[in-house]
Amino acid sequence: MRLFQVRTVEEAVTVLRRYANVARPSRVCPLAEALGLAVARDILAPEDVPGFDRSTMDGFAVRASDTFGASEGLPAYLEVVGEVRMGEAPATALSPGQACRIATGGMLPAGADAVVMVEHTETVDERTVGVTRPVAPGENTVRRGDDIRAGEVLFAAGHRLRPQDVGLLAAAGVAEVPVLAPPRVGIITTGDEIVPVEQTPGPGQVRDVNSYTNAGLVAACGGVPVRYGIVRDDFDALYTAASRALAETDMVVVSGGSSVGTRDMTARVIDALGEPGVLFHGLAVRPGKPTIGAVVAGKPVIGLPGHPVSAMVVFDLIVRPLINPGERRLAVRARVSRQLRSAPGREDYVRVRLRRENGELVAEPILGKSGLIATMARADGLAVISLDSGGVEAGECVDVLLF
Amino acid sequence: MRLFQVRTVEEAVTVLRRYANVARPSRVCPLAEALGLAVARDILAPEDVPGFDRSTMDGFAVRASDTFGASEGLPAYLEVVGEVRMGEAPATALSPGQACRIATGGMLPAGADAVVMVEHTETVDERTVGVTRPVAPGENTVRRGDDIRAGEVLFAAGHRLRPQDVGLLAAAGVAEVPVLAPPRVGIITTGDEIVPVEQTPGPGQVRDVNSYTNAGLVAACGGVPVRYGIVRDDFDALYTAASRALAETDMVVVSGGSSVGTRDMTARVIDALGEPGVLFHGLAVRPGKPTIGAVVAGKPVIGLPGHPVSAMVVFDLIVRPLINPGERRLAVRARVSRQLRSAPGREDYVRVRLRRENGELVAEPILGKSGLIATMARADGLAVISLDSGGVEAGECVDVLLF
Repeated sequence: MRLFQVRTVEEAVTVLRRYANVARPSRVCPLAEALGLAVARDILAPEDVPGFDRSTMDGFAVRASDTFGASEGLPAYLEVVGEVRMGEAPATALSPGQACRIATGGMLPAGADAVVMVEHTETVDERTVGVTRPVAPGENTVRRGDDIRAGEVLFAAGHRLRPQDVGLLAAAGVAEVPVLAPPRVGIITTGDEIVPVEQTPGPGQVRDVNSYTNAGLVAACGGVPVRYGIVRDDFDALYTAASRALAETDMVVVSGGSSVGTRDMTARVIDALGEPGVLFHGLAVRPGKPTIGAVVAGKPVIGLPGHPVSAMVVFDLIVRPLINPGERRLAVRARVSRQLRSAPGREDYVRVRLRRENGELVAEPILGKSGLIATMARADGLAVISLDSGGVEAGECVDVLLF
Repeated sequence: MRLFQVRTVEEAVTVLRRYANVARPSRVCPLAEALGLAVARDILAPEDVPGFDRSTMDGFAVRASDTFGASEGLPAYLEVVGEVRMGEAPATALSPGQACRIATGGMLPAGADAVVMVEHTETVDERTVGVTRPVAPGENTVRRGDDIRAGEVLFAAGHRLRPQDVGLLAAAGVAEVPVLAPPRVGIITTGDEIVPVEQTPGPGQVRDVNSYTNAGLVAACGGVPVRYGIVRDDFDALYTAASRALAETDMVVVSGGSSVGTRDMTARVIDALGEPGVLFHGLAVRPGKPTIGAVVAGKPVIGLPGHPVSAMVVFDLIVRPLINPGERRLAVRARVSRQLRSAPGREDYVRVRLRRENGELVAEPILGKSGLIATMARADGLAVISLDSGGVEAGECVDVLLF
């Protein structure tokens, strides 16, 4: 057995990423089905958006210079030469001294460079409008390319598309998107004491929680969970299940077991799967110390603790960034409602429930032993007590990672 | 045409909820498929979890009173009478003066009331262990029912299940869950200038963005988007499409059009669909003023602005809480990097990008006209400038609703 240094979360993710190298297949997908998928390559804008100068107000398209000096007392009188119809090119160009009715979104006629809001005009007669306030060139318009410039990178390879991103691609006319197949993640639960959810546990037995939370977390990150069920605490049984999962998926997550020596056995099984094998055994994190990080043939294999809460915390810290490397995740700041102790040299992740108090965000630690899954369901996120602090006092601010 | 008061977001959601009354069908679903669905009724825990007293450490199950006064210098010597095997009931009860090897998660033998961590013991011989530190009754154990108490409400009706919630149900043995069918939301885009994404816009035309963002937002909220395509700015065409959508779905969202008079036409169409019809026309919100709120035969019908960004903001504020009424949504606090002006009597929602600076969350406003969809793709959330403020100064803190 090799000896491994205990890693921080940052070191763990870095070393796993260094060895992980899974080429996921890509395909071209209709835009309406692209939500939640990661783009396979940088997506460039094929054209300018908008493709023409548009009005952002209901009013009159004008030459701005014709309105200079206009006021309520001395309006600028312009000849109304028509109306821009929505979805059509204007019939005529504007000559000096002319104006054209236009609605929000309408195309500016040639010669016009600004729009006067209808509120700043007075109708004189059918052919004449009085402008009561001057506009600057460009005012109340968006110019061709203001929204999207042809050739600009809309999304970098790997970015996972949110609703607004799909909207941006629609605007740019990207009707078909090259996307990556979502990563398939094999899920194995080990433990002689674990029984399926449908089964009534006998004395000393507990139901399989981790298959469910891990599958749910994989799906929430945009991956496809593939379940390999409950495996006994036995080298051969675990080796067989893990080999199969490794062959069939892009990443494997093994959680449990809790019995003495099982964690070492899990590490030996993972190491036997192939090269480079186990990269670290032990995280400087509470809860989550007995975590195993490995890569086999370019695929990450993570051994999570058996305790459901520890497993969820470590999944959030280690597995999530592997499934969704492009995710931009920002901790929020909140004031802790009570003192939180920590040991230096270890990061503590404390389940907290957030609430508002006097306009501030307050993080209320949810107390409970790490095995208690109910504490996780009550939590909004994890407060981070950093490596080198001995804890935080009540009323101090902490970072909270939201679920 | 009736006259309507302009509403705040809170008033708008309240009045829509008062009239909305859609009975969604429920079904019983296997737990593995329940992620993201809303529970159809209160879910009670069928039994205590854990179902027995368990160890939370690797060590020795003991009677706590046998360890009182133990120290490094004067250990308490106990007779080792066996080992608890994982997943099995202990073979023997502990008598005074006895201890039993136990692993994390193991079932406490009768007579034991605490666990001594292995680190606080010394092995004397095969049959004797020395305890070098006393434990209190209950220490290093979880008791039957500590995690979940039989009969307690695990989730209230309407709660949408997250990964940790599915895990809690697994722990409690809820293998099948009564869930509500996700709400079906009909999506209509209107506007004579709108062309499908596949089509190259002619002069004055733009592509359909709102069908894509609205469908994506519906899906992200847990609803099922049903698209009814692009409809011309014409009373009969819109009435036909909206009637069909209303008959086939639980809620209808119409966005656009931008041309003068079209917004009034949309309101007239919605009002013609049935009772009670339009409840408000106008939101005290920027962007998003020209919003229409209606309920017809218990189903909400929302008229969103045509501008993609305004439509997304209003969707987030008005439609999201209708699709997912159980969502607990907390704004985070961030310091704004520059002054934001606002008019009193109106709520402003400013797109911001968040970043960390000196450990604090800073909200950087994304400047750009409301029609620019690119600004939405760059944003992490919306900073809220409240009704009665005239704005915020640079460096002040604001609430940010995260996307």
